[in-house]
Amino acid sequence: MSRYAPTREDRFSFGLWTVGNPGRDPFGDAVRPVQKPAHLVRKLSECGAWGVNLHDNDLVPFGATARERDRIVGEFKAVLEDTGMVVPMATTNLFAHPAFKDGAFTANDPAVRAFALKKTMDAIDLGVELGAKIYVFWGGREGVEADACRDPRVAIARMRQALDYLCEYTQDRRYDLVFALEAKPNEPRGDIYLPTTGHMLHFISTLAHPEMVGVNPEVAHENMSGLSFVHAVAQAMESKKLFHIDLNAQKIGRYDQDLRFGSEDVKGSFLLVRLLEGTAGGKRYAGPRHFDAHPYRTEDEEGVWEFARGSMRTYNILKERAREFDADPEVRDLLAERRNGAIDPLLGRYTRDAARRLRELEHDPDALGRAGLRYERLDQLMMEHLLGARE
Amino acid sequence: MSRYAPTREDRFSFGLWTVGNPGRDPFGDAVRPVQKPAHLVRKLSECGAWGVNLHDNDLVPFGATARERDRIVGEFKAVLEDTGMVVPMATTNLFAHPAFKDGAFTANDPAVRAFALKKTMDAIDLGVELGAKIYVFWGGREGVEADACRDPRVAIARMRQALDYLCEYTQDRRYDLVFALEAKPNEPRGDIYLPTTGHMLHFISTLAHPEMVGVNPEVAHENMSGLSFVHAVAQAMESKKLFHIDLNAQKIGRYDQDLRFGSEDVKGSFLLVRLLEGTAGGKRYAGPRHFDAHPYRTEDEEGVWEFARGSMRTYNILKERAREFDADPEVRDLLAERRNGAIDPLLGRYTRDAARRLRELEHDPDALGRAGLRYERLDQLMMEHLLGARE
Amino acid sequence: MSRYAPTREDRFSFGLWTVGNPGRDPFGDAVRPVQKPAHLVRKLSECGAWGVNLHDNDLVPFGATARERDRIVGEFKAVLEDTGMVVPMATTNLFAHPAFKDGAFTANDPAVRAFALKKTMDAIDLGVELGAKIYVFWGGREGVEADACRDPRVAIARMRQALDYLCEYTQDRRYDLVFALEAKPNEPRGDIYLPTTGHMLHFISTLAHPEMVGVNPEVAHENMSGLSFVHAVAQAMESKKLFHIDLNAQKIGRYDQDLRFGSEDVKGSFLLVRLLEGTAGGKRYAGPRHFDAHPYRTEDEEGVWEFARGSMRTYNILKERAREFDADPEVRDLLAERRNGAIDPLLGRYTRDAARRLRELEHDPDALGRAGLRYERLDQLMMEHLLGARE
Amino acid sequence: MSRYAPTREDRFSFGLWTVGNPGRDPFGDAVRPVQKPAHLVRKLSECGAWGVNLHDNDLVPFGATARERDRIVGEFKAVLEDTGMVVPMATTNLFAHPAFKDGAFTANDPAVRAFALKKTMDAIDLGVELGAKIYVFWGGREGVEADACRDPRVAIARMRQALDYLCEYTQDRRYDLVFALEAKPNEPRGDIYLPTTGHMLHFISTLAHPEMVGVNPEVAHENMSGLSFVHAVAQAMESKKLFHIDLNAQKIGRYDQDLRFGSEDVKGSFLLVRLLEGTAGGKRYAGPRHFDAHPYRTEDEEGVWEFARGSMRTYNILKERAREFDADPEVRDLLAERRNGAIDPLLGRYTRDAARRLRELEHDPDALGRAGLRYERLDQLMMEHLLGARE
Repeated sequence: MSRYAPTREDRFSFGLWTVGNPGRDPFGDAVRPVQKPAHLVRKLSECGAWGVNLHDNDLVPFGATARERDRIVGEFKAVLEDTGMVVPMATTNLFAHPAFKDGAFTANDPAVRAFALKKTMDAIDLGVELGAKIYVFWGGREGVEADACRDPRVAIARMRQALDYLCEYTQDRRYDLVFALEAKPNEPRGDIYLPTTGHMLHFISTLAHPEMVGVNPEVAHENMSGLSFVHAVAQAMESKKLFHIDLNAQKIGRYDQDLRFGSEDVKGSFLLVRLLEGTAGGKRYAGPRHFDAHPYRTEDEEGVWEFARGSMRTYNILKERAREFDADPEVRDLLAERRNGAIDPLLGRYTRDAARRLRELEHDPDALGRAGLRYERLDQLMMEHLLGARE
Repeated sequence: MSRYAPTREDRFSFGLWTVGNPGRDPFGDAVRPVQKPAHLVRKLSECGAWGVNLHDNDLVPFGATARERDRIVGEFKAVLEDTGMVVPMATTNLFAHPAFKDGAFTANDPAVRAFALKKTMDAIDLGVELGAKIYVFWGGREGVEADACRDPRVAIARMRQALDYLCEYTQDRRYDLVFALEAKPNEPRGDIYLPTTGHMLHFISTLAHPEMVGVNPEVAHENMSGLSFVHAVAQAMESKKLFHIDLNAQKIGRYDQDLRFGSEDVKGSFLLVRLLEGTAGGKRYAGPRHFDAHPYRTEDEEGVWEFARGSMRTYNILKERAREFDADPEVRDLLAERRNGAIDPLLGRYTRDAARRLRELEHDPDALGRAGLRYERLDQLMMEHLLGARE
Repeated sequence: MSRYAPTREDRFSFGLWTVGNPGRDPFGDAVRPVQKPAHLVRKLSECGAWGVNLHDNDLVPFGATARERDRIVGEFKAVLEDTGMVVPMATTNLFAHPAFKDGAFTANDPAVRAFALKKTMDAIDLGVELGAKIYVFWGGREGVEADACRDPRVAIARMRQALDYLCEYTQDRRYDLVFALEAKPNEPRGDIYLPTTGHMLHFISTLAHPEMVGVNPEVAHENMSGLSFVHAVAQAMESKKLFHIDLNAQKIGRYDQDLRFGSEDVKGSFLLVRLLEGTAGGKRYAGPRHFDAHPYRTEDEEGVWEFARGSMRTYNILKERAREFDADPEVRDLLAERRNGAIDPLLGRYTRDAARRLRELEHDPDALGRAGLRYERLDQLMMEHLLGARE
Repeated sequence: MSRYAPTREDRFSFGLWTVGNPGRDPFGDAVRPVQKPAHLVRKLSECGAWGVNLHDNDLVPFGATARERDRIVGEFKAVLEDTGMVVPMATTNLFAHPAFKDGAFTANDPAVRAFALKKTMDAIDLGVELGAKIYVFWGGREGVEADACRDPRVAIARMRQALDYLCEYTQDRRYDLVFALEAKPNEPRGDIYLPTTGHMLHFISTLAHPEMVGVNPEVAHENMSGLSFVHAVAQAMESKKLFHIDLNAQKIGRYDQDLRFGSEDVKGSFLLVRLLEGTAGGKRYAGPRHFDAHPYRTEDEEGVWEFARGSMRTYNILKERAREFDADPEVRDLLAERRNGAIDPLLGRYTRDAARRLRELEHDPDALGRAGLRYERLDQLMMEHLLGARE
């Protein structure tokens, strides 16, 4: 068996909407038949995945009766049990139906906001019933083209009100569930509110129950704006807010491509896996490794599973490359922390005395400026490890 | 006199580095002589500006003796008094000298970090001496090209340590001063830490003294990533963190252009002025309107002052347009808040009972989806006001 | 009547697919019913448009029998006659059906390439029957995600073969028809071949019948890459290759937004109208002013027509602003050509003697570098005209 | 010795301005001393490079007397002879001096245009004297911020006039020299004319002597706009216009980064090397492999040479990976050309009879749409070869 083959311990998950994507796009019709959720779960399990995630309407059609819903859920749970697959995360579809064309929680019409809350409470119930411990919010329609239509401060306030409401609902139900907010800068709206993981992290700090809310950064969403994804994930980890992650690939400055993980920005993907796996020494991310991508539109079902297997293989290849890189003695030498016995004690907490002594230090700025930091060598070593070409 | 002519009440300020910019760029040498600060202040005053801002080394050369420093500062204060100009904001140059080539507060070498703290304490003293009430931090070199050189979590922690230190220094000195953090995604570094106003706002929420720290968003910096500047400013205002603002213009996805305010993204500039001036009814921004731009490299000194006058005129034209737009009865009608007596009370704070009633509401999603929201009309009206063509 | 109201002389046209767009997007379903072509033509005529353009399948459904096709065409021609509307341009839908998922003229499967040629010949016949004089080619699927799947040189060669083939078909039929090629950098494919107007212009120069092939630049497509649209159009005009134009609006670095003309990049829109209308003195563009955009998804049918009216009004407002700008004496003075009696004669065609004399000229580069070019003033004047605020 | 070590047969070249770059940027001063050209040539030779390229002023200071110039050139030729290094390409610095602040060949002032022609003729003479066979034109200042300052059609006409002039000068002198035009979308100007390789290729087709003019595409310049670099190079190769190439790395939508080749966009770099080396079967590029990048500003001189060695090593690693990929039987199978005996003969040149038969073919579009093209597998195999992880 391949050394890169996935195992359940890798905690790889896929959305039903990813491997089930029929390939419709703004300029073309579906190219693949819609597959039954049960079939998708069985195939994912065969491929080596551990979990499957879903929007409410990926499983239960919009407008289904309570009876249909219960039948569908019952059958789905049977498949989960049969395969050993879990549902680590669930979420709400608040974007497909025309009712949400101007947003859900931020819509100007109170009836839309009420409907969105109701749909989300139902979807939370569904997720919890399936065993989900993480609930994702992606407000894809919470935005504008005609920016004058509402004060953006009002939009943020409405978003806060909805999140506070749903936190309290979850607490009232005593659900063992945390929320993970997913940012995206644009598409399908011209500008989506709270467009990056950074904006979301700040928004969370203003909630009534910040402790139960974190983020779900997505590679493609952050890359669309050309921001460093690995820095955004690091900021979330540093403040203990990385609750979930969406792995895929994307070129900067394009439509939402949702490509197979690792198939663009190979260096950024390496840095991300290195950060998540903690091979350089920092804390490791313990949550699901979720793939939120979709197969090319050129593929039939066989191609869908090649896509799924490739996603997991690439992650495991990069994990191995990251371990080797951080174990390389030359790399360790280049990354050794620089210590300075005279200065380090003065860089701690401010005290009047320490500050006085710090101001008395003699510096030679020109010498500091002349020092070679050997980052070209470090980066080249990283590329050679990445390419499997370290000699 | 022109109805758009600036007055002191407009609180327009310029940096010494803006009108004093000699026009050097990565591919070419300076095209204008370096002007004396006193001359710049006198000319700005003649143009109608209210304030002038500065980096420490815009006024006092790097490495000046205490005596030179005091003489320079004394002369500068005399000019301020003579012209009535104020220094509302000051900041530190932590990017020009080669010592800071790998960052200042986040540099790997403790000696660089110590030198940066020392230089900043001196610069804070200078700013306070000149009357500044706002102190800006732009960490232009706090970033990476070779990302493996430090854990980004360590970078954030070092940044926090520096800010906490300097907050306590400021408090210890009993300075009447707040801090405003300015984000930028890249340039001069490949990726700068805390790249947007959103990331900065979150970072502030993790500081030891968040109450004395806000943001200084810059049009160009946020536009480089193609994010909505007006949404970022709104998020800052909504959480009472808009302490200062940098006005200029920029095309998305380019080098830092620092163009004359309003000369690109006219619609975004209009929306920004509308938000800052509160013409639509929200809270108005009361701080300085600071222009952080530089004249084209094709200009001689005459062109520099045309640039300064144009910046202020365009702001005042847009202010008038925003007032007219928000006073237009058709616009007011389109923007009237939608109320729903049955639903609005259920959208407040969560209670078990309100949630039960909310879930019992009957919805007609298809009808919600069919409603026309008239945003094409709203946006077209905005464009016609903007173009001075409303009939 | 408004001074900006459209007239037939303005030669404004819309695609059936623009005002008939039902508002489906990658994340959501249609929000408006599909309208009958006859209805759209009547409404466009009421709004003041002059022409209507179409893809074959906008009018005749994919797979229709010859009889259905003839009936539909007959009815459509009756409406054209009735309203006086013309069909200046037609094109082929080679992107919606799954058969074209890997391109049409560049697909790896010869059967797809043959089907695409056949469909295009049929669609050319249809366009000519409706009176079209311009035939547009937008190869939206002619691209890749998995770049290794074909040599890009082979793709270009296949594209050339198809265009040469269709030129000869058109000539063989003695159709009074020219071709206009439309570039787009990406979406719906990861990378589309011949991604900008520049690449297309070069490609045309390599065809067997370059004289009958020009370009159809689209504002949004060029802006997606952040390139200057006005420069691309100028390059096409300078080589007499601007055969058609697609007017809309777009932010840089985003999904294909197809916004109402003039609603983004107001300055670029002004510069474009100024170039097309020749207000600064250059040659005027005489072809259709075609709007290739779609109404926001928040709109019902009333909003669709507000969108159409707004598109034309904004064009006419900008045309007036451009005329005023170029008639402004201060602007004329700033733009007056610089002449130099000693040098100008040496800058013509190379001769050995002229080159010798040119090399003997004495230059003062520093003086050339010190001259102020007054571009800040020029640009500010342009902004003030644009904002209707020139005093 | 390493299997990836460069040899003279690899034809690797560097610009004097690359390894000699002192590290000045828009926000900071030089970090490295300026090195003597002779020293740079000796060190490049030691590193395994084959050639060194230069701007006139990289070697001969602006304003040097004829005598100084001759002395400098003589010494430089001695070093070339001593080391065996060649000068395959030369170019003119038409951007650093303030005289060129508004362009060189397109400047509004005829005196600037004359000076630019003179400087270029002198620089061509210099290049030829040093043995250069390729002369590069990068018109970095040929652009605008205030677009109204000149008609872009006039700019293109001026550029054409200059190129035609210099072609005839070169022919008149009977120099064995071709021209290679280098496009860049922006920086240091807001918009540079002829912004991509595509626009340049078209421009060349309009010159008086197109046969002696080709392109010099640069990875970073094309990537700034997010366009496919490999497609641009392929278009140039397909029309026999790839005369030179500039290798480096760049993130999309940023300032001109000029990073070490292969250190960003690893996949694009692989595809480029694969195309240039012809491993998939197409024609191989025979010209210089020129690195136009500069070391990080964090480096001292040791880092400069690590940068140079890394650039060449990465190219050779990717060359090996490309060979392995195209030799992989599974890849060969996936890439085998699809042939169709009934259709292929109908896809050649148009004849009335072949078109009739083509239109009579029966198609099953739905079957074409259902076929799986296995591009996910193909791309994944490419990634695994790239990562050195093919099992």
